[in-house]
Amino acid sequence: MNIIPGELLSQIDSPADLRRFKEDDLIQICNELRQYIIDIVSVKGGHFGASLGTVELTVALHYIFNTPYDQLVWDVGHQAYGHKMLTGRRDVFHTNRIYGGISGFPKRKESEYDTFGVGHSSTSISAALGMAVASRLKGELDKQHVAVIGDGALTGGMAFEGLNNAGTEKNNMIVVLNDNCMSIDPNVGALKEYLTDITTSHTYNRMKDEVWNLLGKISRFGPNAQAIVQKVENAVKSALLQQSNLFESLKFRYFGPVDGHDVNRLVQVFRDLKDIPGPKILHILTVKGKGYKLAEEDQTLWHAPGLFNKDTGEIIKSPKKGPEPPKYQDVFGHTLVELAKDNEKIVGITPAMPSGCSLNIMMKEIPDRAFDVGICEQHAVTFSAGLATQGMIPFCNIYSSFMQRAYDQVIHDVALQNLHVVFCLDRGGLVGADGPTHHGAYDIAYMRCIPGMVVSAPMNEQELRNLMHTAVLNPGPFSIRYPRGNGVMTEWRTPLEALTIGKGRKLRDGSDLAILSLGHIGNLAVTAINKLEAEGLSVAHYDMRFVKPIDEELLHEVFSKHNKVITIEDGCIQGGCGSAVLEFMADHGYTSRLQRLGIPDSYVEHGTQQELWAECGYDEAGIMKAVRAMVGKGVLSL
Amino acid sequence: MNIIPGELLSQIDSPADLRRFKEDDLIQICNELRQYIIDIVSVKGGHFGASLGTVELTVALHYIFNTPYDQLVWDVGHQAYGHKMLTGRRDVFHTNRIYGGISGFPKRKESEYDTFGVGHSSTSISAALGMAVASRLKGELDKQHVAVIGDGALTGGMAFEGLNNAGTEKNNMIVVLNDNCMSIDPNVGALKEYLTDITTSHTYNRMKDEVWNLLGKISRFGPNAQAIVQKVENAVKSALLQQSNLFESLKFRYFGPVDGHDVNRLVQVFRDLKDIPGPKILHILTVKGKGYKLAEEDQTLWHAPGLFNKDTGEIIKSPKKGPEPPKYQDVFGHTLVELAKDNEKIVGITPAMPSGCSLNIMMKEIPDRAFDVGICEQHAVTFSAGLATQGMIPFCNIYSSFMQRAYDQVIHDVALQNLHVVFCLDRGGLVGADGPTHHGAYDIAYMRCIPGMVVSAPMNEQELRNLMHTAVLNPGPFSIRYPRGNGVMTEWRTPLEALTIGKGRKLRDGSDLAILSLGHIGNLAVTAINKLEAEGLSVAHYDMRFVKPIDEELLHEVFSKHNKVITIEDGCIQGGCGSAVLEFMADHGYTSRLQRLGIPDSYVEHGTQQELWAECGYDEAGIMKAVRAMVGKGVLSL
Repeated sequence: MNIIPGELLSQIDSPADLRRFKEDDLIQICNELRQYIIDIVSVKGGHFGASLGTVELTVALHYIFNTPYDQLVWDVGHQAYGHKMLTGRRDVFHTNRIYGGISGFPKRKESEYDTFGVGHSSTSISAALGMAVASRLKGELDKQHVAVIGDGALTGGMAFEGLNNAGTEKNNMIVVLNDNCMSIDPNVGALKEYLTDITTSHTYNRMKDEVWNLLGKISRFGPNAQAIVQKVENAVKSALLQQSNLFESLKFRYFGPVDGHDVNRLVQVFRDLKDIPGPKILHILTVKGKGYKLAEEDQTLWHAPGLFNKDTGEIIKSPKKGPEPPKYQDVFGHTLVELAKDNEKIVGITPAMPSGCSLNIMMKEIPDRAFDVGICEQHAVTFSAGLATQGMIPFCNIYSSFMQRAYDQVIHDVALQNLHVVFCLDRGGLVGADGPTHHGAYDIAYMRCIPGMVVSAPMNEQELRNLMHTAVLNPGPFSIRYPRGNGVMTEWRTPLEALTIGKGRKLRDGSDLAILSLGHIGNLAVTAINKLEAEGLSVAHYDMRFVKPIDEELLHEVFSKHNKVITIEDGCIQGGCGSAVLEFMADHGYTSRLQRLGIPDSYVEHGTQQELWAECGYDEAGIMKAVRAMVGKGVLSL
Repeated sequence: MNIIPGELLSQIDSPADLRRFKEDDLIQICNELRQYIIDIVSVKGGHFGASLGTVELTVALHYIFNTPYDQLVWDVGHQAYGHKMLTGRRDVFHTNRIYGGISGFPKRKESEYDTFGVGHSSTSISAALGMAVASRLKGELDKQHVAVIGDGALTGGMAFEGLNNAGTEKNNMIVVLNDNCMSIDPNVGALKEYLTDITTSHTYNRMKDEVWNLLGKISRFGPNAQAIVQKVENAVKSALLQQSNLFESLKFRYFGPVDGHDVNRLVQVFRDLKDIPGPKILHILTVKGKGYKLAEEDQTLWHAPGLFNKDTGEIIKSPKKGPEPPKYQDVFGHTLVELAKDNEKIVGITPAMPSGCSLNIMMKEIPDRAFDVGICEQHAVTFSAGLATQGMIPFCNIYSSFMQRAYDQVIHDVALQNLHVVFCLDRGGLVGADGPTHHGAYDIAYMRCIPGMVVSAPMNEQELRNLMHTAVLNPGPFSIRYPRGNGVMTEWRTPLEALTIGKGRKLRDGSDLAILSLGHIGNLAVTAINKLEAEGLSVAHYDMRFVKPIDEELLHEVFSKHNKVITIEDGCIQGGCGSAVLEFMADHGYTSRLQRLGIPDSYVEHGTQQELWAECGYDEAGIMKAVRAMVGKGVLSL
């Protein structure tokens, strides 16, 4: 697949090349860059709409600022494809998000132009402020520091913390507010409304008209009055647009709003801003998906559409061989509606991921009990805690890696008070193409040290449904983690059944060794065990289901019968489920050999889940190899 | 110690009693409540200034709102002593913060008036919003929800997340902004300056004067002009104070500022606000320490002064028997200055705890490289990461339990990028009187699952200094945790020595059993082992020093020589240092008996550290008991 860049773009291998062009050429360069993004993402996949929306911004920034000396920080990073293409990575961009290829996000290891690794939201202002303070301390007073943050990411409290701190520091710092009213799903909250207010200049326009009308009458009283009118109007304008602007309240100088698709205007504005000292915010208006009509019209769908025919806009779906198991997230979404219809105390909460976690199903069917609270995991958890104090049963769905953002709230606001909040941790385990920022690697370790927290993981759709049902019945904190991607059951709408908390299940007996698996990854163990059986090995298999409370009865059975045991989890092996089993063994004096399979103590890069499971040694082949090695048949079987 | 409440206060055992008094009596009730706080805190200790500042607010809230039906949420909780005294806990208040007594913070288990447990900052808006939404869903439309938050707590990003979400929800909700320009230390940041601006009404007053002067001239043009002037002025006022107010930007209706020490005015305002639907913010001005002159004058010192003579203001210090070991926090503070004087790349960061963590020493001596960034742990960590990208070496000091707030930033912004940030986790382990919200129980577990993170804990002052020095030399993420309170060395200014990362140390040989301890708690093991020696037991002792990387050579020695091992840590035993040792054993096929001592899998309440260590079984006596039991002398020795 050879994507040919346009005439000008093909001459740009670095921002220095870009800066050799005249300003008149920038529109064509933008057009070519936009086309290149469309060409390559349509056949290679990846994030789409965000980068289309920042083409002009990207070109203007690299044109005016002296990157990489000047520091350019992208928030979240979905929008940085153009940036990667202009900074020497156009020819390797076809490896984007592929195992061994470049990352879908800015990444320090990858390029000196990637000043700060991202993936999670709302970090850019804090990071850029740190850089700006460092430059000041080092005497690099000419160095510029630019944070590009979306209006969605700005709802994250951390962005506010950064603004609050930056406003009192005298540093060269520009925050570019890329306002498109979107995150992955449409942005929500008061701030969004405020930005819309500024943009449509409603208040300002109304005030201006009103004052003008009044003063127009006054001006009839004489020539002196004309000058006075002008002065009053200026005072009103200044009051409206400056002293009392939200960002000016935080001691930033506010500029804008500016059309973010007018590259020449952006160039002009950035050139001016460079010379203004102190913290500044430039508010630009962009359209997510700009330049690709379908993407402009359905921005959520086209956030990351997969492969598509760029001419027809048809999204290419892999042909189905028959009925397929559903995504775990959809099982969550439908089951929550089913539970909520039966119990009016149940509410659903998501921090800005309604389509990602499938809470959008409930938002459509039971809108008054389903809440998208914006990109704010901390608030999402404590809001849930508040609901629980009044007898509601909140299902708070947060991706495993994003739940790291609300760790204190889980401990301090929910678990310590023994509140009935159900945490559904989607994307638990290795997530695939999004890579290390998004892998749900640590949740088992960080959840199981919290007293009173139920920590569970379903092996399939039925188990997920039953765990959700069980969580409704248990009046305390309950966490359920499940992976990205599809389950294993085509007929998944099974009757709901209450499980006994802390009870696992034996899937099969065996004599040579026992496998204890947690969650979906156990399905790989099932096929591995079947194949090993054909080799003459007899392997017992237990589905732990709960890490906490752990099934002591089951473990007594395992360690009474087996002196060789392997634990498998799609999570970090430091402190994870396997370690919980080791703790049980130590507490009860068992000395069986135990090997833990799981995510190793290093950062796993991106690739398909299958590739990454293989790399980490717990795909089907890895499990078989581990079993053979432990039973002493490693050499024979290889 | 019998504290006699005043004549009116003595008749108030619940808010219902309070509400029987006339409004004219409220001033006297406030005076008596203030006096009671002074009387009891002076002899029993606890937080002082915050509750003095909220006496009138507390009385007015309980007078007007129908608590406990109406939901009153205190942020942080330092200021809630008056609330506890009015809600049936006056007669047990002498047990405040004492083992087995009442908590120093609001706590749901303690009273139905304590609607939401606190201790950490900035949670109240989110919690109250959750309550308000629940009430709406349940049809309890008359129920009021009040969050009381300080201007310091408002700098925490989570508060902003709550405001952003609440502004678009139509709920009965009042946020009382208790503005005293303080948290524990003086508040910092742009928001504080903004609040001061509102308060002094500088912009408004200037504008009002300016417009009035101009329009005054116009009014001379005729009688009609007079009315027009009035209309313009109203428009300007409305623009300045409402549409463009920061809180109005977030769709809250803003009221204030109001004198927070005028109880009758507060009563009147709350009565009015009850009838206004939707989210509202009331800005009140208070003085921390109000009514006790010394506390008003030095608010940081009198935040929690310990015992004092209420008449003279003399703070009572326990008599010294001779030179005493320093607090660990002071060793950190002085050593950081020492290191920073030698290395200009070193900077210090604290989120609003300069006196609590002793960064104030560096802030005084090297002010341009020491940063108090406000109550915002998330920002503090990513700000540090930004500094590190530019070659600085940030020492980011955050209490262990507060670091839970920045867990994602530690993983995503620092460790994943292998940045050279040194985390100093003060208050690691059981902290004493502050209780379960503040115990640093989980950091070893949550830190050691992060790839690339060095996890260490010093056993004494010299070790802390050497670890800090070593952390400067190691170009990656490094965490050092140490406890609240004093060390063990009176001569602690030892020469700095670089340690080998991942190397522990053997303190003594022994033949009956080996103890592996981590951190300061190892000193209790030293005395326990000495006493056990007198009983004829020979116990080896190793100071682990590092949990990660763990000292494999040391552990091979231990498990080659010993089949009975006890690990001791002042942290949770689920996933902690002991579990790391179990993982090593499993990986290397060791089968010695191992018992883990540490914080159990439940919430430990408040008390002295000594009482709590005893309760958890790892004080000196607990260690001795565990050793005797393991070597089979349990019965003999008891």
